[in-house]
Amino acid sequence: MAEATARRRGRGGGGAARRAERTAVSIETAKYIERNIPNFEILTAEALEIIEHNAETVLEEIGVNFLDNPAAIQRWKDAGADVDKERVRIPRGLARELIKTAPRQFTQHARNPERNVVIGGNTLVCAPVYGPPFVHDMDGGRRYATMEDFEKFVKLGYMSKWLHHSGGTVCEPTDVAVNKRHLDMLRAHMVLSDKPFMGSVTEPSRAQDSVDMCGLLFGKDFVQDNTVMTSLININSPMTFDDVMMGAMEVYAANNQACIVSPFIVGGAMAPVSVAGTLTQVLAEVLAGISYNQLCRPGAPVIMGTFVTSIDMNSGAPTFGTPEAAHITYGAGQLARRLGLPYRSAGSFTGSKLPDAQAAYETANSLNMGLMSGVNFMLHSCGWLEGGLVSSFEKFVMDADQLGILHHLAKGVSVDENGQAMDAIREVGPGGHYLGCAHTQANFKSAFWRTNVLDYKPYETWAEEGERDTMTLAHAKMKQMLVNYQKPALDPGIEEAIDAFVAEKKASMPDAFA
Amino acid sequence: MAEATARRRGRGGGGAARRAERTAVSIETAKYIERNIPNFEILTAEALEIIEHNAETVLEEIGVNFLDNPAAIQRWKDAGADVDKERVRIPRGLARELIKTAPRQFTQHARNPERNVVIGGNTLVCAPVYGPPFVHDMDGGRRYATMEDFEKFVKLGYMSKWLHHSGGTVCEPTDVAVNKRHLDMLRAHMVLSDKPFMGSVTEPSRAQDSVDMCGLLFGKDFVQDNTVMTSLININSPMTFDDVMMGAMEVYAANNQACIVSPFIVGGAMAPVSVAGTLTQVLAEVLAGISYNQLCRPGAPVIMGTFVTSIDMNSGAPTFGTPEAAHITYGAGQLARRLGLPYRSAGSFTGSKLPDAQAAYETANSLNMGLMSGVNFMLHSCGWLEGGLVSSFEKFVMDADQLGILHHLAKGVSVDENGQAMDAIREVGPGGHYLGCAHTQANFKSAFWRTNVLDYKPYETWAEEGERDTMTLAHAKMKQMLVNYQKPALDPGIEEAIDAFVAEKKASMPDAFA
Repeated sequence: MAEATARRRGRGGGGAARRAERTAVSIETAKYIERNIPNFEILTAEALEIIEHNAETVLEEIGVNFLDNPAAIQRWKDAGADVDKERVRIPRGLARELIKTAPRQFTQHARNPERNVVIGGNTLVCAPVYGPPFVHDMDGGRRYATMEDFEKFVKLGYMSKWLHHSGGTVCEPTDVAVNKRHLDMLRAHMVLSDKPFMGSVTEPSRAQDSVDMCGLLFGKDFVQDNTVMTSLININSPMTFDDVMMGAMEVYAANNQACIVSPFIVGGAMAPVSVAGTLTQVLAEVLAGISYNQLCRPGAPVIMGTFVTSIDMNSGAPTFGTPEAAHITYGAGQLARRLGLPYRSAGSFTGSKLPDAQAAYETANSLNMGLMSGVNFMLHSCGWLEGGLVSSFEKFVMDADQLGILHHLAKGVSVDENGQAMDAIREVGPGGHYLGCAHTQANFKSAFWRTNVLDYKPYETWAEEGERDTMTLAHAKMKQMLVNYQKPALDPGIEEAIDAFVAEKKASMPDAFA
Repeated sequence: MAEATARRRGRGGGGAARRAERTAVSIETAKYIERNIPNFEILTAEALEIIEHNAETVLEEIGVNFLDNPAAIQRWKDAGADVDKERVRIPRGLARELIKTAPRQFTQHARNPERNVVIGGNTLVCAPVYGPPFVHDMDGGRRYATMEDFEKFVKLGYMSKWLHHSGGTVCEPTDVAVNKRHLDMLRAHMVLSDKPFMGSVTEPSRAQDSVDMCGLLFGKDFVQDNTVMTSLININSPMTFDDVMMGAMEVYAANNQACIVSPFIVGGAMAPVSVAGTLTQVLAEVLAGISYNQLCRPGAPVIMGTFVTSIDMNSGAPTFGTPEAAHITYGAGQLARRLGLPYRSAGSFTGSKLPDAQAAYETANSLNMGLMSGVNFMLHSCGWLEGGLVSSFEKFVMDADQLGILHHLAKGVSVDENGQAMDAIREVGPGGHYLGCAHTQANFKSAFWRTNVLDYKPYETWAEEGERDTMTLAHAKMKQMLVNYQKPALDPGIEEAIDAFVAEKKASMPDAFA
């Protein structure tokens, strides 16, 4: 690998060499999770059929709205839908027919081919938190996010072993104009990391900027032939497709880039309070959105998304890690597999204001559910805090560590001769112990998942070291990662071209802050 | 219910009435979890057959040790085992044949019949932490547990809606002599709570005391005809059955009382480092232990237990909430179901020293796994801290709240007409919202699980209220529960008889502290 060679060259000193070694360990990245375990199927065959039937009824009888988008309306007319102004009613079976061209699985390329990810089938790709306007850490508390914070998150993502994807808007850099920040964000993902990333969706023109910048990074032809971005297209639930999101999706589909088409559900507000009702609406929405994606370009890579939270009926606050969200996530996974589509859901969700026990319960509930429900792309897999208002530096590191558990869970159970360990049981016998036996010696290094953050020390050692809680341990780890960070090598010509593109685009328009 | 009547009588004042109302709400208890969802089956049929075959090989070739127990050795000889001093080799198939008399499901009676629990089949009964010599709370920090602490935990357990069982040694009351503390502990469960409980296992004579005290509480005949205790019999893994534990089990089996026969596994120390190897040993051990239980009394109620943790190979510390523990717990659940035995595993496990994020990640991982693996009896389901050295007051309340999630998850997904919610989708339509629709109004009170501990408030409110983390919220909740606690009504004659038994027993022997 060119990068590793570059690191080995030109580093003679002992301190620098040791530091390089530490760094080399830190940027080891698991490619993606491959499931060797079954999915958890909560819905019976009968329940699935009812929900699928009802979703088609919703499309046929009620329909969906495509707002301010005459081209979309025309495409739907041409495809045989029943169109009344902006309302599109889709005859039973049509959406299912249209989505047949969507691939079951695709590869998203990274500039470092070692970091390419396969999305769909039995894989799970983890990407960080997306969208918060605030950040939080132990030093600075809660504050508006800046571009400096954004770059730190990209660096942490690059250094996180169990994180496969650099993500998109890891926080909103509110110190950069709204109409320009996508340029700085994309530049950061391209230059500070070599993992795959997401494109801008806040305007169709910004989606085009994303495609153009990828042309500089990967080469124009490569981008047309390969998927180099996976971007997040939210549906305005219930059943509304606005022109901004659809416009961005049209750009990505036209350029063969992947979209996650994702209902954004707060149960009880944007969907019925019942699980089966919500699943019905989710399925109707993704059928409409993904079939429209395939109308734009048959064969474009696309992911069925489901973002789901329920509402606290007393306060109206969104809630996370709840059993109802789990039911919906499991059920939507089954629906996605029956459609033959890659599936996005779950994440490090919590309503807590701090990376405390509440945050960890809710996150662990959601991460476990994500793995078991067959999620293929997990956005928000680390760093989410306070209902998505905040990206937390400490929680980013804590959650990313937990993703290692999902990797090991997904491996399943080996029953080969080494796994059976009959020799060890014979060697040790009743009353013995296994620490010193040959099988343990041969396997202990790889047998168990190991945390890089959590504390396993004896009470006395832990007390001497200052009784640090998880947030404090993660804070120290985060700082160490940022100190150890080294930019992955990139052709200077490419970096200059990207910088020039960003500078030129920024100079071409006045700042807009809304 | 007599208890509720007693509470309503003799309370005239507004404040007292309001307090009684709060209390009445707090002691609402869910009976037990009934699963309407599938179990997660991680092992293939082939893997199960390999493990089952190997377990029989272990019993036949290597055998197990029954130490200092000539009566057990004689029973095994009579049953057809191959006995060599204390080593018992069990011919292939014999143990499976012997355990056929064990019931698939049994009822453990509580003194309040409303609190009876059904253990086995599709049920899950949750009991609190068991065994720690220390307690921890925010006021007093970490300290040796006392009888006062013990009583507080019993009161909290009684007040916890999602906890079905009062448990056993919720902490070790170290201020009471070792040979007498079982008497005080049992008295506390019997008098301060009306939920089912566990008996003493630290000496056969203390098991007999437990049976005798139950005779006073339930009536002697009732105890002989019904199961009123479920007690924890640990196997000294690997493959060793000591005379103390077996002696206690013999007492309970003879009196038709339930035992959990449970390998105590620290993977890599008491079992192989591999999952399949550990499952093989676990199965061999429970086959030996449960068949011995049935040799003592065919038909005695018995639970297949698996306590599993792995070891941190760098420090030797036990680790919790790990993927390897999950694999073993899922696999052991499958093995238990194939044997037709109720299954005990999982719990609020953590190695953390505080009820912080680490504690919550590890606990949530384990609780979710417990539900999905088909556990029927979950000991340690709340309050466990620091690898089982500490019972935490705050974590008890936090974890007990999370058990509500398991209740709701287990309900599964309704697809009846109300669940389908087609009227709501029709009523609201594209771009509308569901908050005010008829379906939401009719269902919102019961639709979503609600926490009693976690914080859903807006940031500003939360900040004004002192930026409380989960531990701080749980501390306040715990104190409020203890203030609201009211002793459940008990026939004064029964209470006097129990007190007299305890006093007499204590007077009959000198204190022992080891």
